Amino acid sequence: MNIEGVDFYYLSMPEVLDIGDGSQDLLMVRIDAGGYVGWGECEASPLVSIASFVTPMSHSACKPVRDSVLGQHINGVDDIRRIGELVRANSRDLLQAEHTLSGIDMALWDLLGKVHETPVYSLLGTAIAHPKRPYASQLFGDTPAETFRLAQLTRQDGYTAAKFGWGPFGLGSAADDADQIMAAREGMGLGGVLLIDAGAVWIDDVSRAEERLDVLKRCHATWLEEPFVSGAFDAYRTLADAARPVTLAAGEGCHNAWQARHLIDYAEIGFIQIDAGKIGGITPAADIARYAQQRGVTYVNHTFTSHLALSASLQPFAGHVDDEICEYPVAPKSLAFDLTCEHLDRDADGLIHVPNRPGLGMTIDIDAIKPHLVDLEIRVHGQLLYSTPQLDGS
Amino acid sequence: MNIEGVDFYYLSMPEVLDIGDGSQDLLMVRIDAGGYVGWGECEASPLVSIASFVTPMSHSACKPVRDSVLGQHINGVDDIRRIGELVRANSRDLLQAEHTLSGIDMALWDLLGKVHETPVYSLLGTAIAHPKRPYASQLFGDTPAETFRLAQLTRQDGYTAAKFGWGPFGLGSAADDADQIMAAREGMGLGGVLLIDAGAVWIDDVSRAEERLDVLKRCHATWLEEPFVSGAFDAYRTLADAARPVTLAAGEGCHNAWQARHLIDYAEIGFIQIDAGKIGGITPAADIARYAQQRGVTYVNHTFTSHLALSASLQPFAGHVDDEICEYPVAPKSLAFDLTCEHLDRDADGLIHVPNRPGLGMTIDIDAIKPHLVDLEIRVHGQLLYSTPQLDGS
Repeated sequence: MNIEGVDFYYLSMPEVLDIGDGSQDLLMVRIDAGGYVGWGECEASPLVSIASFVTPMSHSACKPVRDSVLGQHINGVDDIRRIGELVRANSRDLLQAEHTLSGIDMALWDLLGKVHETPVYSLLGTAIAHPKRPYASQLFGDTPAETFRLAQLTRQDGYTAAKFGWGPFGLGSAADDADQIMAAREGMGLGGVLLIDAGAVWIDDVSRAEERLDVLKRCHATWLEEPFVSGAFDAYRTLADAARPVTLAAGEGCHNAWQARHLIDYAEIGFIQIDAGKIGGITPAADIARYAQQRGVTYVNHTFTSHLALSASLQPFAGHVDDEICEYPVAPKSLAFDLTCEHLDRDADGLIHVPNRPGLGMTIDIDAIKPHLVDLEIRVHGQLLYSTPQLDGS
Repeated sequence: MNIEGVDFYYLSMPEVLDIGDGSQDLLMVRIDAGGYVGWGECEASPLVSIASFVTPMSHSACKPVRDSVLGQHINGVDDIRRIGELVRANSRDLLQAEHTLSGIDMALWDLLGKVHETPVYSLLGTAIAHPKRPYASQLFGDTPAETFRLAQLTRQDGYTAAKFGWGPFGLGSAADDADQIMAAREGMGLGGVLLIDAGAVWIDDVSRAEERLDVLKRCHATWLEEPFVSGAFDAYRTLADAARPVTLAAGEGCHNAWQARHLIDYAEIGFIQIDAGKIGGITPAADIARYAQQRGVTYVNHTFTSHLALSASLQPFAGHVDDEICEYPVAPKSLAFDLTCEHLDRDADGLIHVPNRPGLGMTIDIDAIKPHLVDLEIRVHGQLLYSTPQLDGS
C-alpha cells in the first residue's frame, strides 16, 4: 500500500506561558494508507515543522519533507527506515526536517501496528514489554517551600521517583539551588528517587555546575540532567568525574541518532534521554536504545507532552528490563492530557505498562481537542501551500 | 542604539531544479538600527527560516527567533555574541533557529562595520586580510566528457584549483567515479589543485568510499569532501587512515560551533569547511577558525551562493595566512550573482581579496533582484504573522 495522505494538526492552549512546560502546544500527524490510519506527534514549534513539510525546494538536498513521504509504499517496517533515510538525504540542508520526521515516523509505526494488529514494541522485535517505574516529572516551584509541597504531594500520590527541573533553578546562587534541592528531597522522603534537571542553564560552565555537586551528593540525587547544552562534551566529561556517585543525564537535545551516539561515546553520561518526538521518531530511538545497552548506558524516554507521545517514547525500550525508569509528565496542560481517550495510568504497584493494543494503542479524542485546533495558512505567490485540514475521527 | 527592524526577503529563481546547486534561492536579511542598515543571508529553505523567526512560542525554550533580536541594543561586537547566545537559549527546541540566526548575525556585523566605517575582519581583530586562492567550485558534469570540458574551461579561465562534486558522483559504480575523477584531473592538468566532493552520498559506508581511494591517490586529489554525513565520526576516522595522503574535508553540515568542534576533535578531518550562512553566522565561524588553527586543521569557507555570503564567509579566516584556499562558486545562478553590485573578482595573480570597505563591503542591487522576490504570507487564526516586506534601497 502507498501513503495517500499526511495531515498536520497544530494544537495549542489558548494562552502559552513563558515557562518550561512543553505541553502547551503540539503538532499531531495523521497518515492514511490502504484504509488504515496512523497517528504521531512532533515535539515543539508546530508552525516551523509544518513549514518544513510544505516549503518549496531549495536544491536537491533541500527538499520539502513531503517529497520523501507522500506516495511512498509502506508494506513493512523496513519501509519506515527507508522513508526516514530518504527524508534525511533529501532534506539534509533543512534543519527542521528531523522534527517533522519524528511525528511521521511515529504515525507509520502506529499504522503498521494496526495493519498487523500488534503493538509497536512487538513490531520492533520485543517479546516481553516490561513495565516501567514512572518518575513524576515536573517543574521546580518558584520557592523552596512550593517545591517541598510539590514533592510531598508527589510522594502522597504514590510516586517513588520524581524529577524537578527548570523554573528558577540554576539562574540564582548555588545557595538558592541548594535550598531547592533540599526541599525536593525533604518532600520526597529519604527513600524516593530524586532527579534534578538543570535545563542546560550553565551552557558549558563547569564551575557553576560544580558548586551544586555537594548538595546533590548529600541529597542522594540519582542524576543531574542537562547541566550543559548537548554539544559541550568536554564540560560533561569533566563534571562526570567530579559528580560521582551522582550520574549525568542528557539527550533531549538530540535530533538524530548520531548526536545521541556522540553523547554516549564522548560525554560520559550515565543516562541517555531520548525524545521520540525530536530525534526522528521511534526508529532512531530504538537504535539508540540498543546502542546504549551495548555501551552500558541506561536509556530513558524524554516526554513532556501527551500520552500518545508517551506511548511512542516507551516502545523503543519496552523490552529492556534493566532500563527500568521512565519519564512521566504529572501536570500536563489539558490539551496534552485530553489528546487521547486512553491514558497510561499506574497499576497497583505504581508501574506503567506500554499498551498491549495495536500500534501505539491510543485513540485520538477528536471532540476534546477540536477547540484547540490552530487555524494556519501559508501562501506562496498567493497559492495555498498549507491550510489547517478538517479534523475527523477515523 | 537598538535593533528597530529585522526584515526577511525570500528570493528565488523562477524555476528551482533538482540539482545540487544551492544558488537557486536565498534568504536575505535586512537589519535597521540607529539609522544604519546591515545585510545578511541565510543558507537554504527561506520559508522555514522565516517561519522560525515569526512562529508562536511553544514554551520558554522554544520562542520565535524574533523575541531574542528585535529591540535588543547593539553597540558593539559583544552585543552580537550576546544576541546569538540569547537566540540559542530561547529557541533551543527550535531546530531551524540556527539557520535564521546565521543571516541575522551577518547583518549585525555588516551594520557595525558601517557604524565604525571599517571592514568586518577588522572588527574581528584581524590586522591584515590575506588574499585567498579561490578554488572553482562546481558540479560534476553528467558524463566524464562533460567534466573534462568543465575542468579544461576552468583551467583556461586561469583557476589553479577546482572542485567537482555532486551530480552523478558516488551514485554509480566505483569505475564510473574513477572515470569522472580522471576526467577532472586531465582537464585541470597535472599542476592544478583537484578537490572532490561526494556530497555525503555514502552516509557512513566506509567500504564504498574506500573503493574510490586508489584513483583519488593516483590523481593527486588534495581532499575528498563529505564522503559521509557529518555525524559519522567513526567512518571518517577509519577512512582518514586509509586515505592518506588524500585528506578528508567536511563541515558544511555543521549548524553550530559545537558540531564543528566535534568534527575537528573526533573525525580526523584535515579541512573544516564552514558555511557562515548555516553555522549561526560570522561569530561562531570565527570561533571555529581559531579553534581549527589551534588543532592544526585547515579552515576553509563553504559558499555556494552570492558574493554577499562569500564576503561574510571570508571574514572569519581573512587573517590566517596558512588557510590559503577559499571556495569560490563559478557558476551561480543569476539571482545569486546579481544580488550585489560589487563582486569579489580575482586580481592579476588570480587571488580573491576580502573587500576593504565598511562592513561586508557589498551593496545590494535592489532593482536587479526585485523580480525574484517571492510573495509569502503566513497567517495564524487569520492574523498576519508574516508577509513579504517592501524591498527598498537604503
